[in-house]
Amino acid sequence: MPFEHLNPLLKPNNKKIVLLVMDGLGGLPIEPGGPTELEAANTPQMDRLAAEGMIGLSTPILPGITPGSGPAHMVLFGYDPLQYIIGRGVLEAAGVGMFVRSGDIAARGNFVTLNSSGEITDRRAGRISSEEAAPLVERLRTIEIPGVEIEVRPVREYRFAVVMRGPDLHPEIDDTDPQSTGVPPLPANARHPSAKHAAELFNQWIAKASHTLAENPKANGLTLRGFSTDPKFPPFNQAYGLRAACVSVYPMYKGISKLVGMDLIEFEGDSPEDEFSAVSNHWEDYDFFFIHIKKTDSKGEDGDFSGKVQVIESVDIALPGLLELKPDVLIITGDHSTPALIRTHTWHPVPFLLWAPATVRPDDQTQFGERACAHGGLGHFRALDTMPLALAHASRLEKFGA
Amino acid sequence: MPFEHLNPLLKPNNKKIVLLVMDGLGGLPIEPGGPTELEAANTPQMDRLAAEGMIGLSTPILPGITPGSGPAHMVLFGYDPLQYIIGRGVLEAAGVGMFVRSGDIAARGNFVTLNSSGEITDRRAGRISSEEAAPLVERLRTIEIPGVEIEVRPVREYRFAVVMRGPDLHPEIDDTDPQSTGVPPLPANARHPSAKHAAELFNQWIAKASHTLAENPKANGLTLRGFSTDPKFPPFNQAYGLRAACVSVYPMYKGISKLVGMDLIEFEGDSPEDEFSAVSNHWEDYDFFFIHIKKTDSKGEDGDFSGKVQVIESVDIALPGLLELKPDVLIITGDHSTPALIRTHTWHPVPFLLWAPATVRPDDQTQFGERACAHGGLGHFRALDTMPLALAHASRLEKFGA
Repeated sequence: MPFEHLNPLLKPNNKKIVLLVMDGLGGLPIEPGGPTELEAANTPQMDRLAAEGMIGLSTPILPGITPGSGPAHMVLFGYDPLQYIIGRGVLEAAGVGMFVRSGDIAARGNFVTLNSSGEITDRRAGRISSEEAAPLVERLRTIEIPGVEIEVRPVREYRFAVVMRGPDLHPEIDDTDPQSTGVPPLPANARHPSAKHAAELFNQWIAKASHTLAENPKANGLTLRGFSTDPKFPPFNQAYGLRAACVSVYPMYKGISKLVGMDLIEFEGDSPEDEFSAVSNHWEDYDFFFIHIKKTDSKGEDGDFSGKVQVIESVDIALPGLLELKPDVLIITGDHSTPALIRTHTWHPVPFLLWAPATVRPDDQTQFGERACAHGGLGHFRALDTMPLALAHASRLEKFGA
Repeated sequence: MPFEHLNPLLKPNNKKIVLLVMDGLGGLPIEPGGPTELEAANTPQMDRLAAEGMIGLSTPILPGITPGSGPAHMVLFGYDPLQYIIGRGVLEAAGVGMFVRSGDIAARGNFVTLNSSGEITDRRAGRISSEEAAPLVERLRTIEIPGVEIEVRPVREYRFAVVMRGPDLHPEIDDTDPQSTGVPPLPANARHPSAKHAAELFNQWIAKASHTLAENPKANGLTLRGFSTDPKFPPFNQAYGLRAACVSVYPMYKGISKLVGMDLIEFEGDSPEDEFSAVSNHWEDYDFFFIHIKKTDSKGEDGDFSGKVQVIESVDIALPGLLELKPDVLIITGDHSTPALIRTHTWHPVPFLLWAPATVRPDDQTQFGERACAHGGLGHFRALDTMPLALAHASRLEKFGA
């Protein structure tokens, strides 16, 4: 439901909502007729919650459309990614904790390898490690361009993010990555006259950065992509009247959460138990907790069916630590499918479990798995409906109309 | 998904998609509690494909809305008929192979019977045969109107199509068919000042045509309907990055396919075997084949339940000829329902089977029929999602967003 219609219905109370996202949860049988990862996993806790609650299949964007991590999470938070578009630069910057305000410009950077003619021979600089990249990023941070402030942070391996801040900056700038080897990086080129000033400043920075990097064996050049600025979304807390927090190990998901205005809960460790403890430690501080489990997706992308099964089981084993907090609404789902069979994000609908003891209309399903979800009481629905469903089951919405 | 969002995701490859449409496939029990036509049919091939693949029910337009053949096919091709509107004249002209360019005007024609007062006594001229109509159409073709070119072709029985080409033509003209007997045909009347010129030219043509027909016993007059011009749709091949071809016996479906930019495969015969052979003969030339089976609809409109069952069975028997081509994605569905019980198109959702060995998430259904489809893994969805699903299962879509 569009924010302008939802907003007048909001009703404050003390009920707690937990959105537990196992990244890439949806799967496929690894062999014909067999179970999916979630079906193969031994998940007594989730099965009990499925029996007490209701399940269904959610479509992240639209049928057939495979979402990236950004859109897949935005939609769970209620922002239609066909309407609310995040630039890639902003996404990358947010992922490493850089705040991009309106008028700032963020871009994704790659270290690359150039030959003596200045042509790219490796678009990822031999996939140098994060350790190798760190001192290079440090050197880039020392570059100064008069009139603007420039922040650079490492992302991972050969990737970094850069944010430029100053007056009169517009982000309509083409990528400098030519998307192929054997040619030099492109200059930053303004797609629109208003962006000429920013493009010129980026070209100055690129010239100094290239000079700084020139003597490195592998990472002796760079490309920039996804120039973009703050997309100015309606803030999550205001949109839903919720004090919301993110519990995530990976920077990317912290970044998206921060972009929509959630607080970030800092914690030690990276296990499901550690994440649930972090929630427990801040239980009174927030109304809404987004908990992100990354490794389901990582194992899927590795093609590691049994590894993904084990991650799901490890979440199930840790679940009592979350349930003892007595959330009023608990949603367990994924942001998209990452079947080990296919080793990448896919478009397949995502298993969805909604447990809300006070208000749920139970279906006749007793297991949390794709086939069961296809028959669940929630039916097939768009992931964009997640937040209104969560709010409704938390008794946080007035009726619409008299 | 809107074309402007889908287009940047397209990824070329060599995978083949087959869309097999049994016109009016959806049915109803002819007696309470009995099977539908599809359920009654013995379809071992389709049942096996249903078991290996996934099934569901698709809604052609919106719940409760009965589609005509034009919109029902447009939606399967991914053109929302609430957004992309084809005039009836254009549809009829396209169906008999007349190309309507922007600025041309097409109309549907009926031969009618007039009494001595010029009042219509039969709106279909006693349903004269195609053979009787042919020489009449020949005479209409000899009529000349200065400043424009006019093309006339027979459609079937008492129906013909006319296309006017020339400068400054606008199609906002009311039907001349009064939709009742006992009154004369109406003049071509401009609904908008810009169409006055074209309306005047059509009235000149109608006067000459009426004079030409006056001495016939049955077809001594005519009416025109559905004045319209080229709707200018995004071409199918560009919209999806597919070399697409239509295999159809009936002109109407060739016309719609041509209208969206598909090639037409010519072939001899009219059986499912003939149609599948035509696909086989051009297997390397195209990435996408639309195969249209007409007789399921015809039998439904005749109220011939067992006849419709037999047509479905004849398709099933021929299927191995299609399967041996090893399509990567095979969709078997209808464009709408035509239950023999009701003898006309209806709004009921349509059985849908998606078979794609590499990527399908199988459900627990093992028969292709309406009741099974209601429980299938594809759930209930809009027919407009057909093309994105087909492209996704052919691995022809990149992910959306990072």
